[in-house]
Amino acid sequence: MNIAFIGLGNMGGKMAHNLLKAGLKVHGFDLSEVAIAHFTEAGGITHANPQAAAEQADVVITMLPAAKHVKEVYLGENGVLAVLKKGSLCIDSSTIDPQTIKDIAVVGAEQGIQVCDAPVSGGTIGAQAGTLTFMVGTDLNTFEQVQSVLKPMGKNIVHCGEVGAGQIAKICNNLILGISMAAVAEGMALGAKLGIDPQALAGVINSSSGRCWSSEVCNPWPGISANAPAGRGYSDGFATQLMLKDLGLAIEAAGQVKQPVLLGGLVQQLYQQLCMQGNAQLDFSSIIQQYLAKEA
Amino acid sequence: MNIAFIGLGNMGGKMAHNLLKAGLKVHGFDLSEVAIAHFTEAGGITHANPQAAAEQADVVITMLPAAKHVKEVYLGENGVLAVLKKGSLCIDSSTIDPQTIKDIAVVGAEQGIQVCDAPVSGGTIGAQAGTLTFMVGTDLNTFEQVQSVLKPMGKNIVHCGEVGAGQIAKICNNLILGISMAAVAEGMALGAKLGIDPQALAGVINSSSGRCWSSEVCNPWPGISANAPAGRGYSDGFATQLMLKDLGLAIEAAGQVKQPVLLGGLVQQLYQQLCMQGNAQLDFSSIIQQYLAKEA
Amino acid sequence: MNIAFIGLGNMGGKMAHNLLKAGLKVHGFDLSEVAIAHFTEAGGITHANPQAAAEQADVVITMLPAAKHVKEVYLGENGVLAVLKKGSLCIDSSTIDPQTIKDIAVVGAEQGIQVCDAPVSGGTIGAQAGTLTFMVGTDLNTFEQVQSVLKPMGKNIVHCGEVGAGQIAKICNNLILGISMAAVAEGMALGAKLGIDPQALAGVINSSSGRCWSSEVCNPWPGISANAPAGRGYSDGFATQLMLKDLGLAIEAAGQVKQPVLLGGLVQQLYQQLCMQGNAQLDFSSIIQQYLAKEA
Amino acid sequence: MNIAFIGLGNMGGKMAHNLLKAGLKVHGFDLSEVAIAHFTEAGGITHANPQAAAEQADVVITMLPAAKHVKEVYLGENGVLAVLKKGSLCIDSSTIDPQTIKDIAVVGAEQGIQVCDAPVSGGTIGAQAGTLTFMVGTDLNTFEQVQSVLKPMGKNIVHCGEVGAGQIAKICNNLILGISMAAVAEGMALGAKLGIDPQALAGVINSSSGRCWSSEVCNPWPGISANAPAGRGYSDGFATQLMLKDLGLAIEAAGQVKQPVLLGGLVQQLYQQLCMQGNAQLDFSSIIQQYLAKEA
Repeated sequence: MNIAFIGLGNMGGKMAHNLLKAGLKVHGFDLSEVAIAHFTEAGGITHANPQAAAEQADVVITMLPAAKHVKEVYLGENGVLAVLKKGSLCIDSSTIDPQTIKDIAVVGAEQGIQVCDAPVSGGTIGAQAGTLTFMVGTDLNTFEQVQSVLKPMGKNIVHCGEVGAGQIAKICNNLILGISMAAVAEGMALGAKLGIDPQALAGVINSSSGRCWSSEVCNPWPGISANAPAGRGYSDGFATQLMLKDLGLAIEAAGQVKQPVLLGGLVQQLYQQLCMQGNAQLDFSSIIQQYLAKEA
Repeated sequence: MNIAFIGLGNMGGKMAHNLLKAGLKVHGFDLSEVAIAHFTEAGGITHANPQAAAEQADVVITMLPAAKHVKEVYLGENGVLAVLKKGSLCIDSSTIDPQTIKDIAVVGAEQGIQVCDAPVSGGTIGAQAGTLTFMVGTDLNTFEQVQSVLKPMGKNIVHCGEVGAGQIAKICNNLILGISMAAVAEGMALGAKLGIDPQALAGVINSSSGRCWSSEVCNPWPGISANAPAGRGYSDGFATQLMLKDLGLAIEAAGQVKQPVLLGGLVQQLYQQLCMQGNAQLDFSSIIQQYLAKEA
Repeated sequence: MNIAFIGLGNMGGKMAHNLLKAGLKVHGFDLSEVAIAHFTEAGGITHANPQAAAEQADVVITMLPAAKHVKEVYLGENGVLAVLKKGSLCIDSSTIDPQTIKDIAVVGAEQGIQVCDAPVSGGTIGAQAGTLTFMVGTDLNTFEQVQSVLKPMGKNIVHCGEVGAGQIAKICNNLILGISMAAVAEGMALGAKLGIDPQALAGVINSSSGRCWSSEVCNPWPGISANAPAGRGYSDGFATQLMLKDLGLAIEAAGQVKQPVLLGGLVQQLYQQLCMQGNAQLDFSSIIQQYLAKEA
Repeated sequence: MNIAFIGLGNMGGKMAHNLLKAGLKVHGFDLSEVAIAHFTEAGGITHANPQAAAEQADVVITMLPAAKHVKEVYLGENGVLAVLKKGSLCIDSSTIDPQTIKDIAVVGAEQGIQVCDAPVSGGTIGAQAGTLTFMVGTDLNTFEQVQSVLKPMGKNIVHCGEVGAGQIAKICNNLILGISMAAVAEGMALGAKLGIDPQALAGVINSSSGRCWSSEVCNPWPGISANAPAGRGYSDGFATQLMLKDLGLAIEAAGQVKQPVLLGGLVQQLYQQLCMQGNAQLDFSSIIQQYLAKEA
């Protein structure tokens, strides 16, 4: 099996590395020379553009920053769909709006090429360790093939539905995540101001109906969750600007189907405010800073 | 041990019943004749006012609708603090603002009477089954005694800190709960509108970072969580008007300590809107109705 | 005509002064010795408590911080209703919830005493200059009498409806004001960040559909509105904590009648956040600071 | 002077008509045959595509639904910039994001063509009557020429700054408008529920600090503002879906410059909710329906 991997950045580079470690032949492309250098060093075969990388491939995997890059790589001037052979499989692991990948899949289908979406969660740590969760949108037959391709890179490979369903699952999950993190920040800050010990408060919440991933695994109050970004100055987490991007995708998708997202609309702006104040790179649990009086 | 139980309504009546079943002598008072009748039938000893009920008591338990009733029962004209003997214990299980019980505890302390707060979660079902969670605010010595008193009525008896800490824990938990339920409603409704199967979406969320009590145990989309109110027309749950009351307490307490609760301030109004539309008695997960287009 | 004036603080002291300047006999009470000293110096007659001040009065005017003080002065141990003669008139100019003054008016009516509400706008400057706006709630007959009493202190004396309507008008107006100020702050900050000259932007808004008191008279961007607090570091305006109090009254009143105030619920918390950051004394137009990146 | 007018829909058709009535020669293009028919009947010269219409033109005016159409008409396959002669003037009156028109202006400038933005307010009524307000973004020299071109169509032609500033002014104004309308709806509905006469309440607001265009000219409570949509079932006004579009542009532009718009983010979703409930065509003041209990 020949794999082409387009987008060898922070996430993609680590993912491709795991494919190479599994003994697979990987053709790659990235605009960054640094990314290319890492990939070559790990045994990858570099090409001058996406099309060249895809020419011999049975499977194309893409991991790109935004929808416009995905469109360009699949449908643009040097787009891969133009050179792939009938029966090829394309897996886009970028986080983008659901409609874009559906549109690309339609073009692919006309040429007998399966295009599916498989956005990830787990961050750069999961990408490195090969423990990512993949949320896959495709038909059930193709899903089996997708699973075997993704296995070297992921721990959980979840079938979410038809093409686009992976993106839908991811943005809905992250919409809930962005709101519930702010909710936990709000509740922890309130409790502390009212005088309860934050450890005791977190204990109650985590054994009661307020419990959530944000209260248990990534509590924004320092020292509650082991290894959470809050304990290291909110570094090395899920950057606020990435949460902001995902909330933007959720709200854009909601607008396309005329669906209101009341709390989503507000928290997007709260994370924007946090970014404006210079915290774009910090973990999104640093939203708790909006609830704490600044030291004089 | 003589116990006085003031407030024998939906919750208090069932709680007192469990004390009686445990073989304890319980003196009771309530304004409602129906409540009194049930209590008497179960073996309780009825009195004409709180003071009369408390006169022989070693322990007083109160379960009342709001802070003004709690103040009246402890400090009012027929208030129990005036007749209790030194060394008595008072446990208020009402859900009220933290400051009120702290104030009452100061008065109690002057007379050598321990007053503590122990609000509950678990609803009328937990009250009946004796499986309530009690969030207790008192010093560690008293906590042991409180535990032994509450044991016939509860499964989890959690020490939250000094007096008032039980109320703080409860309102902070419910603040997070009220927001995260609305978040799940928003995310589930968005996903469904975008075309993903709600079961598949819930599956992803519950194995990912969006998971919370509201997505797992009480998902607002019908048919996701076994036995959740969503599956029975949102009946027999935690009434929206009670969630509204608890959010009101959180926001009031936040105002007293000049702490902002941005999402709390908004969701309180969303639940108020839901009540205005005639859903005050429905489970608060019916907030999902605000996100669904009405049938023509 | 004998007037009793209870509450001689920042507002009340200046208002009473205008009555004295108009040649009226004014009996006064305040807890503050400084306030009393100013009042005596201006020719007022001081008393030991509200009741003593009211004993000979035909008219009682109250200007107090909150509902609990109003209740105390009218109905408390030394309350004025107990000593006023039949046919007396009471005018409460405090800003409180509508229900409290309605309740007091019922007690007054039983004794043949007219109690009405007349909260003010215009601030301490208007109080000093005698140019306040009074929003009066009472029947039309009494309104004529109220007008003649208030004339030395106010420029506009508006009849809003039955007792309570003055408070209702004030809190609804200030609810809209608090939101529209934040809206103007948001729009001005956005425009400036996008690169338009704030003067040009304000020019367009003020000749278009975005225009409002907050954009025209009290624009939060410095240098737009002549004499606005924004031009003097947000000093000497309508303090954020007073706006916060009024929003609290609006939301409390809304809760009593089960009416949602979605934007109100959110902006209350935004002003609370502003107070938490140390700006409680600044004019509420300083809300624009939440929209500006802090200097490094 | 030869004018090309691209986009002859509800707004553009009426605007072009006023140019024709002023005796000007107008070449036009639209995709709709109905639009073309009206335009021809009024004396316009029809062309097969934008380029053909622009070939002989000194001035091009565009009035299109969204940024993608504007990009297509200026820069696309049959784009007008490719055929216009040096020294031509292009005026885009569409409401789009500021960045798109800035980008097009850069391309135009390279060819010696002035491109400026001049979005309008005043709706179809103003378009028909020739009383639109134009918010113009261009340098001061070009502005004079723009004024003379727009005069037959508008009453107020306001210079807002460099290219893009017209769009900035419009979206900031409409951001404030969208929020303040919701604020007035909230305040009027609250007052009515609390029992004040809406006429009396509006009277107080409009002579006080809550006054704004939405309370005075277009009050959402029926019967307050003469000729407002509220008095005719919210018909024939500024459609909620157009307000939603403009709020979307404001939030998108804010995101591009990393500027938070907290209330904007929320009200966008409230208008989205209103659209979901079937009110997309109603005037945006129908937002008051979210604050009124539905009749049983």
